[in-house]
Amino acid sequence: MPAAIIPFKQKNPKTRLSCILSETEREEFAGAMMLDVVAAVKDANCRPVILGTEPFESEDLVQVAMPGKGLSDALNEYLSCALDAVLIIMADIPLADEESIKRVIATEKDLAIVPGRGGGTNVIFVRNPSKFHVDYYGFSFEKHMKIAADSGLSVEVIDSFRLHTDIDEKEDLVELLIHGTGKSRAYLEGLGFTLTTEKGRAGVERKK
Amino acid sequence: MPAAIIPFKQKNPKTRLSCILSETEREEFAGAMMLDVVAAVKDANCRPVILGTEPFESEDLVQVAMPGKGLSDALNEYLSCALDAVLIIMADIPLADEESIKRVIATEKDLAIVPGRGGGTNVIFVRNPSKFHVDYYGFSFEKHMKIAADSGLSVEVIDSFRLHTDIDEKEDLVELLIHGTGKSRAYLEGLGFTLTTEKGRAGVERKK
Repeated sequence: MPAAIIPFKQKNPKTRLSCILSETEREEFAGAMMLDVVAAVKDANCRPVILGTEPFESEDLVQVAMPGKGLSDALNEYLSCALDAVLIIMADIPLADEESIKRVIATEKDLAIVPGRGGGTNVIFVRNPSKFHVDYYGFSFEKHMKIAADSGLSVEVIDSFRLHTDIDEKEDLVELLIHGTGKSRAYLEGLGFTLTTEKGRAGVERKK
Repeated sequence: MPAAIIPFKQKNPKTRLSCILSETEREEFAGAMMLDVVAAVKDANCRPVILGTEPFESEDLVQVAMPGKGLSDALNEYLSCALDAVLIIMADIPLADEESIKRVIATEKDLAIVPGRGGGTNVIFVRNPSKFHVDYYGFSFEKHMKIAADSGLSVEVIDSFRLHTDIDEKEDLVELLIHGTGKSRAYLEGLGFTLTTEKGRAGVERKK
């Protein structure tokens, strides 16, 4: 039962959605997406651990606060101390589900990795965390592939659109409204978001 | 060994790429993507059949021309006559590879389907084609799920980002330049396309 580390930014998250969501709404939406990821991770028999820049209110969730540290530094500190396999999964991939996560943790390689949109990294599963380190931001997928190669670790790239689809911009909400089944989709629908098509291209609009 | 029908528009394709590719380049690029799909389909032991609005020059490829028909009508005519299982796979998903296609055709359900970006349908595998019909354009993924349900056909949705990623717009080229391995990536690189990052968002630019 591996730990699933879920980095989570509670304050002023998802600024690229500012055009359609207020700051409070972005915080609520980011929280809903994180809870969808938590639910998927639990369904896949992992133990979720929220890695936050500050503590937040929750009765159920295990939290590790890493104030003042960047994402990579905080994760690398955790990895260097971890004794068992670790799953690192982003909080903004609410299409994550039991099956896709199970494909990741079932890898027979040292490492399984899921690229995000635009060359990022959405999920990493590492059997022996002390032998690996992360380097997020920019084209981190290629960086992580290189770190694994340099460390002599074998890698499986998991081909999953559910785990590939991170939600950063208005256009990304289309996939959530089509394929989502959890709290974050319901949250958007509660705000009046619906699907549209313009010039054959799918989009979203907010009706309320 | 199922037939793999690959609808292909040779003339003035991919108009949303007009901002960065000339008409001739768009035709060459669309042809390169189609050949990447053909190669993947062959690797997965399917027999590619190009379904075009007009015939084009090729010594190797089996072609069926359907002049004057829309995509859905042309495909439905083909499906109604097909005796064996049929794979329908779009020509603009050049990240398709052997493994992802094999996951589709290995389904134990009546139908396997892969949603495209924005609610489209990129791949359909149907065991008994005469019991199914297609309805492309718009949110065709949901339409195909409903047609299957109405026809009493069981469906597996295949979770693959390689088959999900259709190339329509400039932003989509990012994924091809990161994850592509075939002719279409090489074609873009030959034109001088490279990856960039602006404000933390991945993009492409054309240097030549």
